Amino acid sequence: MGEFDLIARIRERCTSRRDVLLGIGDDAALLQVPPCQALCVSMDTLIAGVHFPYETAASDVGWKALAVNLSDLAAMGAKPLWATLALSLPTPDERWLEGFLDGFFELAEREGVALVGGDTTRGPMSITVTIHGAVLPEHALRRDAARVGDVIAVSGTLGDAAAGLRALQQSSAAHQRPELRVRLDRPTPRLALARHLAGRAHAAIDVSDGLLADLGHVLVASRVGASLQLDALPTSQAMRQSVPDAVERHSLQCEGGDDYELLFTLSEAEWLSLQPEAERQGWQVTAIGRVEAATGLRLSLAGHPVDPPTRTGWDHFGAAS
Amino acid sequence: MGEFDLIARIRERCTSRRDVLLGIGDDAALLQVPPCQALCVSMDTLIAGVHFPYETAASDVGWKALAVNLSDLAAMGAKPLWATLALSLPTPDERWLEGFLDGFFELAEREGVALVGGDTTRGPMSITVTIHGAVLPEHALRRDAARVGDVIAVSGTLGDAAAGLRALQQSSAAHQRPELRVRLDRPTPRLALARHLAGRAHAAIDVSDGLLADLGHVLVASRVGASLQLDALPTSQAMRQSVPDAVERHSLQCEGGDDYELLFTLSEAEWLSLQPEAERQGWQVTAIGRVEAATGLRLSLAGHPVDPPTRTGWDHFGAAS
Repeated sequence: MGEFDLIARIRERCTSRRDVLLGIGDDAALLQVPPCQALCVSMDTLIAGVHFPYETAASDVGWKALAVNLSDLAAMGAKPLWATLALSLPTPDERWLEGFLDGFFELAEREGVALVGGDTTRGPMSITVTIHGAVLPEHALRRDAARVGDVIAVSGTLGDAAAGLRALQQSSAAHQRPELRVRLDRPTPRLALARHLAGRAHAAIDVSDGLLADLGHVLVASRVGASLQLDALPTSQAMRQSVPDAVERHSLQCEGGDDYELLFTLSEAEWLSLQPEAERQGWQVTAIGRVEAATGLRLSLAGHPVDPPTRTGWDHFGAAS
Repeated sequence: MGEFDLIARIRERCTSRRDVLLGIGDDAALLQVPPCQALCVSMDTLIAGVHFPYETAASDVGWKALAVNLSDLAAMGAKPLWATLALSLPTPDERWLEGFLDGFFELAEREGVALVGGDTTRGPMSITVTIHGAVLPEHALRRDAARVGDVIAVSGTLGDAAAGLRALQQSSAAHQRPELRVRLDRPTPRLALARHLAGRAHAAIDVSDGLLADLGHVLVASRVGASLQLDALPTSQAMRQSVPDAVERHSLQCEGGDDYELLFTLSEAEWLSLQPEAERQGWQVTAIGRVEAATGLRLSLAGHPVDPPTRTGWDHFGAAS
């Protein structure tokens, strides 16, 4: 299978959108951005052994490559439209490619994303996706827009992906739970919730580096501080069973990345009016803290202050930051 | 140097544009596409040893990573606006990074491109750029728009990059010419010419896979054929000196990739009216053939038909196509 066969294989799996004037097959794609909306662009690379375990199924790699990018659009409150894909493979492995495309297009079709271009090369395995979406600029959820008094909330549950990865790394059958592994391999970008929050919430970020690191990014950008209740962190049943020790659990929840949940801040009034909508839609949302004027982050457990863990965030060059 | 330092280093080199509502530093960039214009998107990966020789200077790698993408925009007649950069490095080498950024931003500033986002990861060296531009959709230079009777023309000279690479691979000092090497390492995207051709020429493509392969893409997409005069191919003085044999020279010019010249088709009338403008602007443009109704490609030399070379085009998976 040569490069052109590979492109043909990808191309025949593509579904289009009406705003794609020209898709795969020319020097560049031509796309129609909705009038008055800002184009929203993000780009993420996945490398085997760094961003996913080597033994990850090809279809999960395909899903995750798109999911982590969609999660960035969710964090802006944007609607996803188009993706481009740069795929580098050591050998053009047909079976792996078909699996990869299965996972990629399963998520693309679910979220209405059209693949409009990219590049395929021979090289060490690496997958880079650039995602494009649209949002009214005044509704975008920026990191620098948190306000003193805001409720800090998160979607879903925290720490599952980190617990799933730890169980895998320890090869500890006792701690492995499929519910955790699926959170690691097939993260769910919170797009519907994000679209609802656009124009309603103030700031947002997706939890990819770890809760404390990502909250830190928001606080620094917004020049505010926060208090956080560790006992308020939403925790799955599988996580409680896999990690019975509360200290360990909190550490995984605060520092583990890869949850791809949405962390957002909004006024008390918006928080209250979110509740019935969240119930209707089946969105799990949990208040975990408050934005405060004093800079820095204050953690508490059962009403008592506790120290933050020393290592915060996931640095892909391995240095603590 | 950790990932966040690396991002900071890149960020401080960025210049912005007024249409960048939000650049590096959030989950995604927010960008304002010019009204009524189509967004034009392309993505290209460079891998050491595949797309550039291992010993290429870091600044040349930075230049080329952006240049090959800008060349795709040129091939659509689009005006470049923004880029995102995914950089994977085995170790965060500060000196290499600064060199890379020197070359990248030298070209970005020359063409008014703002770097608005991306990703940095630890892994085998690989550089992926996604480029964004804008063009009136009805003016875009598509591959499928060549018309019977069109003049086939190219910018610049052909085969220089291939001759430069061959001399390097053969370690043949006699054949090495800095003028050829610079064409390999620092290709010039023909953006000004392309902007002039938008709405005037019919079809265009950039010569990256090789002249015959790329012309083939246009002919197949447009469902036409062509005749090509090998003795009309524009040839640099350095190329003539480095490759004195005409047959070898034609082979390099027909099959070598990496020239990043513009190949375009346009009516006889537009071709004639291009001449004085090209002279004013200092653009070298050369007519090399004609679009014809009969499919397939007919080559001639000194008025006599000749066979096309057997291997056409550059396949990054190494299979002849």
